Amino acid sequence: MSEFMGARYLLANDTAVRLYQACGNLPIIDYHCHLSPREIYEDREFSDIGEMLLGGDHYKWRLMRCHGIPEEQITGSAGWEEKFRKYAEALATAAGNPLYHWTHMELRLYFGIDTPLNPQTADSIRERANAVIREKHLSPRKLIQLSNVEYLSTTDDPADSLEYHRMIAADSSMKTVVTPAFRTDTLLSIQKPGYREYCSRLAEAAEMPVRTFAEWKKAVCARMDVFCELGCRFSDVGLEKFPSEYGTEEEAAAAFDAAVNGQIVPDSLYDKFLGYCYLWLAQEYKKRNLVMQLHFAVKRNTNSLLFETVGPDCGGDSMKDAIPSEQIAGLLDRMNRTGNLPKTILYSLNPTAVESISTIAGSYREVICGAAWWFCDHKQGIIDQIEKIAQTGDLSTFLGMLTDSRSFLSYARHDYFRRIFCSVIGRWIEDGEFMEDQYATELISKVFYQNLKELVNRKEQ
Amino acid sequence: MSEFMGARYLLANDTAVRLYQACGNLPIIDYHCHLSPREIYEDREFSDIGEMLLGGDHYKWRLMRCHGIPEEQITGSAGWEEKFRKYAEALATAAGNPLYHWTHMELRLYFGIDTPLNPQTADSIRERANAVIREKHLSPRKLIQLSNVEYLSTTDDPADSLEYHRMIAADSSMKTVVTPAFRTDTLLSIQKPGYREYCSRLAEAAEMPVRTFAEWKKAVCARMDVFCELGCRFSDVGLEKFPSEYGTEEEAAAAFDAAVNGQIVPDSLYDKFLGYCYLWLAQEYKKRNLVMQLHFAVKRNTNSLLFETVGPDCGGDSMKDAIPSEQIAGLLDRMNRTGNLPKTILYSLNPTAVESISTIAGSYREVICGAAWWFCDHKQGIIDQIEKIAQTGDLSTFLGMLTDSRSFLSYARHDYFRRIFCSVIGRWIEDGEFMEDQYATELISKVFYQNLKELVNRKEQ
Amino acid sequence: MSEFMGARYLLANDTAVRLYQACGNLPIIDYHCHLSPREIYEDREFSDIGEMLLGGDHYKWRLMRCHGIPEEQITGSAGWEEKFRKYAEALATAAGNPLYHWTHMELRLYFGIDTPLNPQTADSIRERANAVIREKHLSPRKLIQLSNVEYLSTTDDPADSLEYHRMIAADSSMKTVVTPAFRTDTLLSIQKPGYREYCSRLAEAAEMPVRTFAEWKKAVCARMDVFCELGCRFSDVGLEKFPSEYGTEEEAAAAFDAAVNGQIVPDSLYDKFLGYCYLWLAQEYKKRNLVMQLHFAVKRNTNSLLFETVGPDCGGDSMKDAIPSEQIAGLLDRMNRTGNLPKTILYSLNPTAVESISTIAGSYREVICGAAWWFCDHKQGIIDQIEKIAQTGDLSTFLGMLTDSRSFLSYARHDYFRRIFCSVIGRWIEDGEFMEDQYATELISKVFYQNLKELVNRKEQ
Repeated sequence: MSEFMGARYLLANDTAVRLYQACGNLPIIDYHCHLSPREIYEDREFSDIGEMLLGGDHYKWRLMRCHGIPEEQITGSAGWEEKFRKYAEALATAAGNPLYHWTHMELRLYFGIDTPLNPQTADSIRERANAVIREKHLSPRKLIQLSNVEYLSTTDDPADSLEYHRMIAADSSMKTVVTPAFRTDTLLSIQKPGYREYCSRLAEAAEMPVRTFAEWKKAVCARMDVFCELGCRFSDVGLEKFPSEYGTEEEAAAAFDAAVNGQIVPDSLYDKFLGYCYLWLAQEYKKRNLVMQLHFAVKRNTNSLLFETVGPDCGGDSMKDAIPSEQIAGLLDRMNRTGNLPKTILYSLNPTAVESISTIAGSYREVICGAAWWFCDHKQGIIDQIEKIAQTGDLSTFLGMLTDSRSFLSYARHDYFRRIFCSVIGRWIEDGEFMEDQYATELISKVFYQNLKELVNRKEQ
Repeated sequence: MSEFMGARYLLANDTAVRLYQACGNLPIIDYHCHLSPREIYEDREFSDIGEMLLGGDHYKWRLMRCHGIPEEQITGSAGWEEKFRKYAEALATAAGNPLYHWTHMELRLYFGIDTPLNPQTADSIRERANAVIREKHLSPRKLIQLSNVEYLSTTDDPADSLEYHRMIAADSSMKTVVTPAFRTDTLLSIQKPGYREYCSRLAEAAEMPVRTFAEWKKAVCARMDVFCELGCRFSDVGLEKFPSEYGTEEEAAAAFDAAVNGQIVPDSLYDKFLGYCYLWLAQEYKKRNLVMQLHFAVKRNTNSLLFETVGPDCGGDSMKDAIPSEQIAGLLDRMNRTGNLPKTILYSLNPTAVESISTIAGSYREVICGAAWWFCDHKQGIIDQIEKIAQTGDLSTFLGMLTDSRSFLSYARHDYFRRIFCSVIGRWIEDGEFMEDQYATELISKVFYQNLKELVNRKEQ
Repeated sequence: MSEFMGARYLLANDTAVRLYQACGNLPIIDYHCHLSPREIYEDREFSDIGEMLLGGDHYKWRLMRCHGIPEEQITGSAGWEEKFRKYAEALATAAGNPLYHWTHMELRLYFGIDTPLNPQTADSIRERANAVIREKHLSPRKLIQLSNVEYLSTTDDPADSLEYHRMIAADSSMKTVVTPAFRTDTLLSIQKPGYREYCSRLAEAAEMPVRTFAEWKKAVCARMDVFCELGCRFSDVGLEKFPSEYGTEEEAAAAFDAAVNGQIVPDSLYDKFLGYCYLWLAQEYKKRNLVMQLHFAVKRNTNSLLFETVGPDCGGDSMKDAIPSEQIAGLLDRMNRTGNLPKTILYSLNPTAVESISTIAGSYREVICGAAWWFCDHKQGIIDQIEKIAQTGDLSTFLGMLTDSRSFLSYARHDYFRRIFCSVIGRWIEDGEFMEDQYATELISKVFYQNLKELVNRKEQ
């Protein structure tokens, strides 16, 4: 019987405890998060645990909605005290949900609170947590430092000025390396309203006109170069659509022209545009030795009424069906045949595809599976991801954890992952299936730190 | 080492034992079963354990067929003694099959028999069980009473007269609330032969003509009202086809007209008819505050030769591929946008879709996942369902178990589920991931009883 | 804490140890492998553990590639010493990969080596292993004998002369029954270049002309008869395409004619050809009481560049999406309706389909699920396969393990499977869900040996 959220939390066996003692404190390289560079730069002290936990966190909003809490007390005008109470109400019986794990880990790790959060404890926990914020002067940088984060990559639009990234880079008091990642979702969303305006912003950022597809490509490359100057090592895309056709440059240009002229781009042309652009971008990433992240099988704004009333990223999204394996393999093979396959990380929101994707990844030297993503990012999901990668591939090349979060408290998720990983390896060792020797430590260090350290340090080829 | 089918059966840890002691005896609300209202009303004493176990139970027939037993001794004219022996033969080595669990639980719970059933014990077990039937005067109502069933909802066709439901309602000696559920499978099966005759039966039940689609809708509403008068709280549908298109009223009427005129309804028109009807029915359910149950991903009569020789529901069915998530989300979103989404419970026969469906459900306040269904209704399937719902949603809103059975002995399945549920929660507590306090008990009580109690008592809005 | 790869390796509980002691030593019936009849006949003593482990083993090549080892040291001209060292490097941290399990089991079982293989031990292990080869005169037959193999079925093309099979059959010193299996992949691959040449080889083997589809069918039957004379009991097919249409004899003949005339066979015609041939072959198998093995959901040569540079079967393959259940059920039902459904074993490379396929199989008396295949053939994959078959079918009819391997060392995989199987049954017994009595032993003996013994001895009907 383990103590509630105790020191051995998630360490399922004695070997796991030893492995965790050996490797659990390695620095964090958070290669994919959604933290705000502005908040990092400005580094304002927090004022309320309610805001820290619930501000912008659609995972929690969703749970509260499922629990029947009125929208007013979720994303509405109710105060943080009331919202925090309501969250406590939803959380108290949310056994098995990762929010239950994360919230209690965050309370323990940053606030020293080990009481379960529920309607009876909500007010006193909030009071104590807010006192800790004031005592420790908790701020974005303070949390990053407490979490031993060596490197972090935010997620940035090509049209973003990166001004805060520049200021952070110029600030010698900042010990953590903070870099942008090149996120192309909006760049490629030519079916969405306002694409012409987006191109204006891109033009402004790139300081060159973006009227034609050729100009657009030039501007994209210019931005990519600026990202690289600021240390960018990762690109990312997470569209609903995964390309199934590969248009010519002319077809892609035709799609682009339609979009900037305010016309509707038909689905089949959009598909060709995407296919063309994925191949072209991969080539540009490869040239600059950028890592390509592909997120897929996501349906956004599933609840369209919620989207219209509350907005995007508010907790009304869902998994899409697994992308046909032929499409994934088809894309990678096209890149590989022409020597343009960059180091690639695949993330499927639909977990049924993990084995299939892992076997596709294993067919190419440069491709690996990433961490369990979003709805899959929970204890069992992480165990499944580790085991499936191990069973069908080479676990020692896995890149381990990323936070994928908008919250500075989310660094607790690295601890979450590391405890789980040590438990899996520990179980194999205790079952006589693996050896507790230097290779076990090597494997764990690679997954927790060394693989990423090598990757972020890899210079352009 | 646990005793075979002993008191701690399926209670995997000490905490589970305590949780089960606290909550395992809550009354049963069986919100979805296929019991016969006539058998409940007539309440005839059973005469043979063979008939009780094997009469109409296609799960068992299927296992016997897989085991190589001739049809004669399964659904043929062999006597119960012989059939029971043959079933014992198939069961003896059916480790890991839920029939192994259920049969032994039923023998223990209702007959006090804790010997494994196998060819050596079959005759003596049958003798003892038949003696118990006579001693205890086992009958439908007796079993319902022994099982502490507070409420049960049968599954009924709109064209059903509900005469036995009326008589049960008028019988003050019956303590269990027995209500009908509105099952629309036949109502919507306009591609099947004999649809015109079905409409005649519907017309008779509704006491109004059913010649046009408008009349059909009126008659359906009339029947729905009668169901509601008899306490109906649930609708249900479990067709092979899930709508992917949404026809206009005119298109639906055209499909209906073709069907009643004995013409073949083309697949695409049938699809539009279904889409129209699902939306229309949802609106009518919402008005009456009925719960909508959607069962899907089922292929019936997979073995067409068996269907032709033995009939439907004889054990020759299978899982269908998971329904595209876009179809499920598309249907629910249409209902939600117009304010016509009733409280909805989703059941997929294909278990690979659970995570995806749970994330769709979690996008709408009114939608939840139901219990593991049919081929998924076994120990690991139930554990998976609990864990996946917990990981991707709010376990505290889960409605727990239903029997979905034609057999009065199947109430043992509630005990099966409750033991498994307590084991999952107990494991989380023993691993320090959840707290054994009032919120644990609250969670379990909600899932076993309170959520359903609230739902069946919820008056029309 | 279990000793690394110790005597209790993979035996997860005390009951498993007892069950394994009782049944673990039953003879092996390897009903599906890719061993070379020529190598069995010639029986040359091995010379190097590097060659034994790495020669032709694309599982290992793949792991080495994923680990970043240059192709030169995988399939290139580097020597066995160097390749063995590099494999040791990749294996040392490959926790959870079945190669880690298999390699260490093979080293222990055949060479008495229980040291983990890693860069530090590679040279000394190779030296010791090579000494053992010389001491024990390890050769194909010696390994077969040490492994207690009673029966083995290789995989052979209809155009194969079977000369080595004839010579083995005539060699009274060979105690193991060695039979061919009828593998139709090349026979049916009419879209591949060189099909005309293939027909010439078929004609030569059958000693009759193969110019028309009618002649082709006659030749195929003739070869099937010869295979049967040499004890063949199994057919097999493992194409990428699973038929979704069923052409007429004329359509199949048209497809054949196009192929032998060097024309391109369009996909839709190929589909019809396959559909026709699957049905026709099933009928011929049924006549001869051959077992039909269907392998599916495989994508070959996913990495097309690797295929072009290194060749097929080199480790660049992947899982395909699950085959639509309607196609699988549709094929089987067609065969069943006409009385032409032979004993059939289904293998899906995509593990997400196991439950669905098991429910389809359970709808027909003659159909069962086979062992976890290729990418699914690892500890957890085997456990999942056992549990899913048990949950949705009759575990007692399972045919247990096959090696599916090109290596004589792979008989260790039977021990791997048996330990895992005993652990699953042992767990159920220790949890009180199954009884440790004669039926447990009967179940295990059937799965390990008796079911296959009966099947390979079943004479033509």
